[in-house]
Amino acid sequence: MKFVIIGGDAAGMSAASRAKRHMPEMDVIVLEKTEDVSYSACGMPYKIADADRPMDDLVVRTADVFRNKQGLDLFTGCCAEAVDVKNCSVTGTIDNGESFRFFYDRLLIATGGRAIIPDLPGFDLPGVVALKSLADGRRIKDHIKVNAVKKAVIIGMGYIGLEMAEALRARGIEVDMVKPGPDLLPWMPRELAAEAKRELEANQVRLHLGCEINGIDKTDVRLGVNCNGRTLPADMVLVAVGIEPNSQLAADAGIETGVGNAIAVNHKLQTSNKRIYAAGDCADAYHVVTGQKTWIPLALRANRAGWAVADHVCGKATSLEGVAGTAVFKVFNLEVARTGLSFEESNRYGFEPVDVTIKSRSRAHAHPGAESIWVNLVGDRRTGKLLGAQMVGREGVAHRINAAAVALHAKMSVASFSQTDLAYAPPFGPVWDPLLTAANQLLKKMI
Amino acid sequence: MKFVIIGGDAAGMSAASRAKRHMPEMDVIVLEKTEDVSYSACGMPYKIADADRPMDDLVVRTADVFRNKQGLDLFTGCCAEAVDVKNCSVTGTIDNGESFRFFYDRLLIATGGRAIIPDLPGFDLPGVVALKSLADGRRIKDHIKVNAVKKAVIIGMGYIGLEMAEALRARGIEVDMVKPGPDLLPWMPRELAAEAKRELEANQVRLHLGCEINGIDKTDVRLGVNCNGRTLPADMVLVAVGIEPNSQLAADAGIETGVGNAIAVNHKLQTSNKRIYAAGDCADAYHVVTGQKTWIPLALRANRAGWAVADHVCGKATSLEGVAGTAVFKVFNLEVARTGLSFEESNRYGFEPVDVTIKSRSRAHAHPGAESIWVNLVGDRRTGKLLGAQMVGREGVAHRINAAAVALHAKMSVASFSQTDLAYAPPFGPVWDPLLTAANQLLKKMI
Repeated sequence: MKFVIIGGDAAGMSAASRAKRHMPEMDVIVLEKTEDVSYSACGMPYKIADADRPMDDLVVRTADVFRNKQGLDLFTGCCAEAVDVKNCSVTGTIDNGESFRFFYDRLLIATGGRAIIPDLPGFDLPGVVALKSLADGRRIKDHIKVNAVKKAVIIGMGYIGLEMAEALRARGIEVDMVKPGPDLLPWMPRELAAEAKRELEANQVRLHLGCEINGIDKTDVRLGVNCNGRTLPADMVLVAVGIEPNSQLAADAGIETGVGNAIAVNHKLQTSNKRIYAAGDCADAYHVVTGQKTWIPLALRANRAGWAVADHVCGKATSLEGVAGTAVFKVFNLEVARTGLSFEESNRYGFEPVDVTIKSRSRAHAHPGAESIWVNLVGDRRTGKLLGAQMVGREGVAHRINAAAVALHAKMSVASFSQTDLAYAPPFGPVWDPLLTAANQLLKKMI
Repeated sequence: MKFVIIGGDAAGMSAASRAKRHMPEMDVIVLEKTEDVSYSACGMPYKIADADRPMDDLVVRTADVFRNKQGLDLFTGCCAEAVDVKNCSVTGTIDNGESFRFFYDRLLIATGGRAIIPDLPGFDLPGVVALKSLADGRRIKDHIKVNAVKKAVIIGMGYIGLEMAEALRARGIEVDMVKPGPDLLPWMPRELAAEAKRELEANQVRLHLGCEINGIDKTDVRLGVNCNGRTLPADMVLVAVGIEPNSQLAADAGIETGVGNAIAVNHKLQTSNKRIYAAGDCADAYHVVTGQKTWIPLALRANRAGWAVADHVCGKATSLEGVAGTAVFKVFNLEVARTGLSFEESNRYGFEPVDVTIKSRSRAHAHPGAESIWVNLVGDRRTGKLLGAQMVGREGVAHRINAAAVALHAKMSVASFSQTDLAYAPPFGPVWDPLLTAANQLLKKMI
């Protein structure tokens, strides 16, 4: 059996390793267009923040380890360009200019996502960067060093933008952040987003909300981001307006795509062509709350989907459950977390949402060092079900969100969630965990 | 309607306040034998640790606030001695020597628990103390100050003993801990208990396991704990061998008691006498994993049960779900947490347990400052269900356990739990949360 995998990042390498572990005799062929496989992409902002450590700390396993220890046929510098579904082959070009063709019995498309670059003047200038691949990370780190970057503009205020704001401030770089929309973290309730805003401003990050971007100029030495009639000078411009799935290769081969242009897959990660799987940031998933398709590119899902593909290719019964859209990120000293649907999303999906926002504490009454924890909880008036949770605070947020995530997977009602036996000790929270206080309040509003 | 409550601690005051909020016209009478109501009992070790802060920081609301602001008939210094179920009355003695009698329409027994004091010579000597009430806490703090305590012996190595070891070391007091059993935290897998042991020893706590205690002596100035033929000198001896429910008053009135001698209650917190409720550390509960009765005295349950009693007394539909036995405590810089059943408990309850113990990290690959996290997960081979989880680590343990606790409430299988979408960001954990790594490993062993 020939199992060909396009893309050697989280999903692709997870699938490759696991398939080889299950069936050592299988031909597992991985085609990766860059030279990097298996690295901690989400760790990049933290390595950019640290001038003393190399980006390559993030490499978990090198290509040679996969080749020599695991016996994978791993080809880096190989860009897949077309899938011939009739003849079951993949063709493309090696970076030395030669072309290749591999035949497959089973194919996994794990081409990931790419940073969206707006089609505006100057976004191709040197010094205008995006952060997606490890090569991008190295480039940004080099650019900061070589050009002694003093001022940076970040376009976009999503996870990556915010994590990079922290990283650049850690390097002593002045940071301006710009976006056209009027709200920071628009999916959050106002009180929670205000905490994030305060934290950014307390760390001298200048936020320019509601600023339409017209383009980027270059003067002698500096870049200038033109927005709303003014120009923000910068030695580096980071474009962080979001990512999109690399699904063109699949679409060109006649494979169905769906929500957010991602490759449509079933619970076995099969595409519309049953010999072809898709996993990772290029593929969609079912949402555990809506039951409908969603596209939420997240690292855990990519790894898990890669494993599930390997299991199915090796003949194991496989059915991957959905995602809850659980995410956490750090904004300087603030932990920001979410799972499930926001109030607005709940409305959009036809629920009858009720929500509550409460402020609690990270430690018990009279315990020193307590910080505020904000919780927003959303329930469905019609079914009584929990729909989503969001939290912001300086401690005790990142892992607390998981209790709500598990409740969403279990399709728990707010009433049942409010009765869960969560841990209590004075250094770690109040007797009534902030999530329970929120659930109790929400329950009152739902009746 | 006359609603009489015996005991003005967590369960009793929660019930009293809530009943009065629901029905301001109701006569709510609380009889409390001490002078303290509504304080954070679990916070006591942390206030003993801090020479500069008074114990009374732990008081959340004083008796006068309950009387004046909430309109409760709250009688402190009133010790209930008998319940006459025929005439629906409670009799007892006020601390000025007068006796009282109150008639009730509904009665809540919330008499809590008491420290077990072994029936051995010398346990009544001055300087031999136990920590249960706020008065105990004040006494211990005073004793340390007045006697300039330099050496303490703690008998018992449960939560309270371990938290007090940390508190006393923070005061510069030498600590010996003694117990007859051979194992520290015997309900834990060896690897996890070993971490706690190392942490205690690293903080100069001397552990004497397998030491039968024969009694306590007093010489001129010092106490001496006699065990295994030797004497451990001490300026203070803390007895922390466990607590037992204060259920005698109920038993004397013919009310059924059950597991651990606690007062037996149904899901509405009613005792065998339907006009009489019990809540808090004196009452039992259903365990969500076994479905059977259990007695696990915990603060959250006491508060929650108090509320449920008030709801039912006020005519609201009430059904309190069970407990998972979730607990967390700090051992110096270590977080120790559990929920559900241990492997041995699972066996005892007739499950077919399989367990796994793994070591993971508190932060992502290459992220600075990562610490080890140990996880033990127990599943049932017969049903595939998750039965329990235990964790130990220096960070990221206290709130992580809640994900497993919610899974137990939802009666989730290990397979489903392993598919939950838990939060990931490099500062907060690996891509595969330690709980998921454990679930993946456990799943392999269960098939």
